[in-house]
Amino acid sequence: MKLETIYLYENRKDVSLTAYLLDDSPEMLAGKARPGILVCPGGGYFNCSDREAEPIALKFASLGYHAFVLRYATYTGSADFPDLSKPMAVKEECLYPHALREIGKSFLLLRERAEAWKLDDARIAVCGFSAGGHNAALYATRWHEDILSGYFQADRELFRPAAAILGYPLTDYVYKREAESRLPKMNQDFFRKSDAAFLGSETPDDALLEEVSPARHVSELTPPVFLWATAADELVPVQHSLLMARALADQKVPFEMHIFEEGMHGLSLASQACAAARSQINADAAQWPDLAARWLAKRFALPLEEKTAYEKMLEQGIFPGMTPAGA
Amino acid sequence: MKLETIYLYENRKDVSLTAYLLDDSPEMLAGKARPGILVCPGGGYFNCSDREAEPIALKFASLGYHAFVLRYATYTGSADFPDLSKPMAVKEECLYPHALREIGKSFLLLRERAEAWKLDDARIAVCGFSAGGHNAALYATRWHEDILSGYFQADRELFRPAAAILGYPLTDYVYKREAESRLPKMNQDFFRKSDAAFLGSETPDDALLEEVSPARHVSELTPPVFLWATAADELVPVQHSLLMARALADQKVPFEMHIFEEGMHGLSLASQACAAARSQINADAAQWPDLAARWLAKRFALPLEEKTAYEKMLEQGIFPGMTPAGA
Repeated sequence: MKLETIYLYENRKDVSLTAYLLDDSPEMLAGKARPGILVCPGGGYFNCSDREAEPIALKFASLGYHAFVLRYATYTGSADFPDLSKPMAVKEECLYPHALREIGKSFLLLRERAEAWKLDDARIAVCGFSAGGHNAALYATRWHEDILSGYFQADRELFRPAAAILGYPLTDYVYKREAESRLPKMNQDFFRKSDAAFLGSETPDDALLEEVSPARHVSELTPPVFLWATAADELVPVQHSLLMARALADQKVPFEMHIFEEGMHGLSLASQACAAARSQINADAAQWPDLAARWLAKRFALPLEEKTAYEKMLEQGIFPGMTPAGA
Repeated sequence: MKLETIYLYENRKDVSLTAYLLDDSPEMLAGKARPGILVCPGGGYFNCSDREAEPIALKFASLGYHAFVLRYATYTGSADFPDLSKPMAVKEECLYPHALREIGKSFLLLRERAEAWKLDDARIAVCGFSAGGHNAALYATRWHEDILSGYFQADRELFRPAAAILGYPLTDYVYKREAESRLPKMNQDFFRKSDAAFLGSETPDDALLEEVSPARHVSELTPPVFLWATAADELVPVQHSLLMARALADQKVPFEMHIFEEGMHGLSLASQACAAARSQINADAAQWPDLAARWLAKRFALPLEEKTAYEKMLEQGIFPGMTPAGA
């Protein structure tokens, strides 16, 4: 494995892309390129949580994919969570559409380095959790827009994702506002602050809410989506996943969805590998990575031969480097 | 993640220990140490196969454990397989007990670095596949002998492994010789050459065969063992696993064993992550890593709190960094 971290801005250290690049071997892909998964951790646009960063990357790496963690622009610009009891300053450098464009910039960087990294750049998935799931979903539904290709003055196809993997994402800000009054007061506060951090106001206008709602931008250009959540999620209600699924179904975009009955928000892998406490382990939800692996394997299968060179020689009666059988 | 490679000899590059060290985070273990798994790839003592190296390490890393790949002394001293049609030179620097002692040396190195690496050095497992499984099994059964502590002039306890994970290991050289005539000619040739590479002779004497047979050295000092193989293995017959299991049962050493009916020798993870060809993917055998993860979690559980600090505060009616509910 090789590790490499690239900072997306010359004068900022808060936004970075960390590559987990699998070693190649003559015994395995022998020079052929692997698909990759770009991971956006969550954190309410306040921070990028470590729990949804490296552990997720290593899970995908263990499946044979190159993995990348994007720490996009957030309020604290680190893994630290802010003190939400204090007023939120408006930080221009963290507002929408920075985080969306940083996924776009990451796709450009990945495609520039595809040959050097033996990355199959026709098969890069965008993945995210919670706010990172929102960012990934927004990218999956709007990758083809001028907000990316126009801004970067780059060919639209360079931004195309091949799939999206979304964990307990926020997908509809219009629904979020409508449903807000039914949330616990603490969660209402959380989202008002999150809106301030991400959208620059605790009361963003209708047009902006619509603009940042992935479930309202699904189209025939949206790639296949794998989606999971828990019905018991008290922070980002499962309705967000259902609204996204409904939009995908309406637009006939291939998707797979798993809703587990139990489990709090932010489970990440739902295993000890990303937990601080046993309460963050959930054997039901922990099934999602294997479900995602099966789903991914259908479109992101590694470029394997049917049989090994050794098997082919044996079939031809050639016993490589050994005395022929029976001799 | 941090990667670090240590060469075990000053004047040789063929024997190395590569560490895959997980990043810590205040959101996860917050400074507490993790268990580790030391992986010995297979290759008939001819080579160390890449297919049983990094992919295995990343699987264990994805479970939350630090992982280490030991490339021990072999005939080619690389991932390359030798031309077995040619006579084998006797290479003193690759003969038994080099590979065994290199595991011992690795345990000393891991324990020296435990604090710096946040490694729980009371919980280090030794793991191996095929010949690497033999090496790991030999170590698990003989770690307390003078061949290690006497040679390194180090306290015996520094060599103690907490568990062993063995994939399709060779465990009994005495059985191997007895059964040899029933093997296909090609496999007989393979093992004669392997004996030359590892034991310095195509016809090692009885005492040496006994000495290098882990199934004949199981004792109350042998740590718990997880063992898996395929009944269809044509290179290392499943009897080797059964003999090991019998010895563990006789000595009342805790063990778990899984024998899958189908599957060729050398499947490693039996998934695309370590394959050159689809014939090396086997959905049945590919269950072993999850079975091993469950078994490991019983003794190698990460040191997690019962609940997160956040949950504990909520239970006490403290709403950290937010307006109290209902306010």
